[in-house]
Amino acid sequence: MKIVVDAMGGDYAPRETVLGAVKARRELGIEVILVGNEGPVRQELRSHNAEDLIPVIDAAENIGMDESPVGAVRRKHNSSLVKAVKLVKDGKAAAFVSAGNTGAVMAASLLYWGRIENIGRPAIATILPNRGRCTLLLDAGANTDCKPKHLLQFGIMGSLYSQLILGVKNPTVGLLNIGEEETKGNDLTLSAYSLLKESALNFIGNVEGRDIFSGTVDVIVCDGFVGNVVLKTGEGLAAAFLSMLQEEISKSMLARLGMVLTVPILRDLKRKMDYTEYGGAPLLGVNGITIIAHGRSNSTAIRNAIGLARDLSEKGIVNAIRGGVIKMAGKEVRCLDA
Amino acid sequence: MKIVVDAMGGDYAPRETVLGAVKARRELGIEVILVGNEGPVRQELRSHNAEDLIPVIDAAENIGMDESPVGAVRRKHNSSLVKAVKLVKDGKAAAFVSAGNTGAVMAASLLYWGRIENIGRPAIATILPNRGRCTLLLDAGANTDCKPKHLLQFGIMGSLYSQLILGVKNPTVGLLNIGEEETKGNDLTLSAYSLLKESALNFIGNVEGRDIFSGTVDVIVCDGFVGNVVLKTGEGLAAAFLSMLQEEISKSMLARLGMVLTVPILRDLKRKMDYTEYGGAPLLGVNGITIIAHGRSNSTAIRNAIGLARDLSEKGIVNAIRGGVIKMAGKEVRCLDA
Repeated sequence: MKIVVDAMGGDYAPRETVLGAVKARRELGIEVILVGNEGPVRQELRSHNAEDLIPVIDAAENIGMDESPVGAVRRKHNSSLVKAVKLVKDGKAAAFVSAGNTGAVMAASLLYWGRIENIGRPAIATILPNRGRCTLLLDAGANTDCKPKHLLQFGIMGSLYSQLILGVKNPTVGLLNIGEEETKGNDLTLSAYSLLKESALNFIGNVEGRDIFSGTVDVIVCDGFVGNVVLKTGEGLAAAFLSMLQEEISKSMLARLGMVLTVPILRDLKRKMDYTEYGGAPLLGVNGITIIAHGRSNSTAIRNAIGLARDLSEKGIVNAIRGGVIKMAGKEVRCLDA
Repeated sequence: MKIVVDAMGGDYAPRETVLGAVKARRELGIEVILVGNEGPVRQELRSHNAEDLIPVIDAAENIGMDESPVGAVRRKHNSSLVKAVKLVKDGKAAAFVSAGNTGAVMAASLLYWGRIENIGRPAIATILPNRGRCTLLLDAGANTDCKPKHLLQFGIMGSLYSQLILGVKNPTVGLLNIGEEETKGNDLTLSAYSLLKESALNFIGNVEGRDIFSGTVDVIVCDGFVGNVVLKTGEGLAAAFLSMLQEEISKSMLARLGMVLTVPILRDLKRKMDYTEYGGAPLLGVNGITIIAHGRSNSTAIRNAIGLARDLSEKGIVNAIRGGVIKMAGKEVRCLDA
C-alpha cells in the first residue's frame, strides 16, 4: 500500500513535504510516492540521503494557494495535485495527502473520484483534543452553505469514522447550536435537529461551543462556515492566551522563575492545541482517501498526515461509509442523496 | 440619572443582583432602582445595611430562564423584567440592566421601546479583551438568521459605539468570514461584503476567527448564530486550557513550585478572558439602553454592568446611533430599514 503526497502543496513545500515523506518512510515504515517538480524534489531527497527510498513522479505545473480551485483543477492536468489524485484513481496509490490549496484538493478529489453513494456533500472532519478523549468536528470548511440533510449526512459519516478510526463504541453525535433546547437555533439547525433525532444515530441533541473542548461528545456536526470560524477562533485564542501569559510573566522576577518551571508544560499544551500535530483532516464522502494538511504544515505534520492516510486506508473508511450510511440514516433514509 | 436593575434575573438572583446594586451605589456612586420580589430583595439589602440606599419596586411575577421569551413578556406584565423596562419608558430610569432570560430582555426592550429609526434588527454587542485593545463583536446572539443589510446595520452601530464609548477614532470594521479574499464566504457574507465596502464605514474587509483575539480590528460583524457559537467556543477553550494546565502541573513537584509562582498571573488572565468581569453586553438598536448581563453574573459583574449602563446613558448612545446611521451607510443608504 502506497500513499501519494503532493510535494508542491503547502507554505513550506517542497522542503517540509519531502522531509515529512522521508520521516513517514523511516519512522512509520510507510511506502510513499512524491509528485512534484522533479528537480527540487530530488534535491531535497538527496539532502536526506533518501533518493532511493522514495519514488518521484514529475509534475510540470503547480496550483497556487490563491488560485480559483475548480478552474485550476480543470485547467492544470499536469499539476502535482491533479496527478496525485489520478494515481489513486488508477489504483497506483491507496490514499492522497496534500497541504496545498484546500479548495483545489477537494475539487480534484470530487472530480476524479466522485462521491460515495447517498452522500450529497463531502465534509472535512477535524479531530480536536480535549480533556477526556477526542472530539470529531465536521464540516470544518468544505461547504459554506448547507441544507439540513447535509448535516444529517455529516453526522452519519462522523459517527462511522469515530467507530472505525477512533475506536469509539456507539459514538454520541451533537448538533452545534446556540442553546441546548430543541427550540433553539437558526433555520438550518432547527430542521437538522428533527432529522438527526429520527435517524439511527446516537444523537444527544444540541451542543454548544463550550462542548467542543470539554470531551462530552464524540462527534459534532455543523455547516462548514461555522466549523471553519470555530476552528480559527480556537487557534487564535490559544495563541493569544500563550502570548498574554508570556507577556505577564516577563514583568516579574518571581513569575519568571515560575515560568522556567512551567515552560515545558506550556509547550506540551500548545502542541495539544496545535492541530498541525494531528497531521491533517480527512475529506469524508468522496470515493477515496484524501487527507488535507494545514497550509503551514511542517515535516512532522506531513509525516502524521501520511500516517493517518495509511490508517484510513487499512481500516477501509470508504467502504465503511458506503456500507453504513443507509443503516445509520434510520427513518430519515429519504434524506440521503440517492 | 437612575439605573434600574432586574433584581430577579440571573442564576444567583436576588443575592448577587442586590449586592451588585449595593456595590454600584457605594463604589461607583450610581443611583440604582431594584425591581423584584420585595420581601427577599429588602432582606438582601438589610443584610448589607443598604435599605435606605436603594429604592425597591415590588414585582409579583418572575420570568424564568427557560420560558418562551415573547409569550412571557406579553403575559407577565407584573414581572420584574417588564416593570423595569416600563420604568425606562416612563422616564423614571435612564437605563436597564438584567441577567435574566436574554430572549425576554430583548423582547421586552423591543416591545416597549421600539427600534431606532433605520435599524431593522437590534444586536447584542460584546466587548472582547485582547492583546492590544478591545474588539467589539456583534451580533453576539440576538438574531439567528440575518440578511446582508442587517450585517451592514450592525457594522454601523458597532462603529458608532466604538467611537463614542470606547473612544476609538475612525474604528476599523471587519466582516467575520472563512478567508480574507473578497470571493470567500457563504451567501450571506458574500452579499454583506459588497454593502460594507460601499458604505462610509472604515471597512477593512474579511477577518477570520483568529483576528477576534489579536487586536487587529475594532469592530467585527457577523450573524447572531455565528457570534454566539464563537463566544461560547472561546469561553470553553479558556476553561479547558486552564484546567489542562492545572492537571499537568499537579503531576510534577517542580512544576507545582512553578505554579505557585505563576498562579496570580493565571488568575488575572482568566479574569481578562471572563466576560462577566466586563459586566455585560449592550443591546444596540432599541430606543433605550439595555445591558444584558451573563446569567451566571456575580455581584461584581452586576456592578460593572450598572457602570456600563451609566456610561452609555451619559454619552447618549441611542441619540448617537439615531443621528449617525444614515451618514455611516454612505452609498448603501437604501439598505437601511426606512
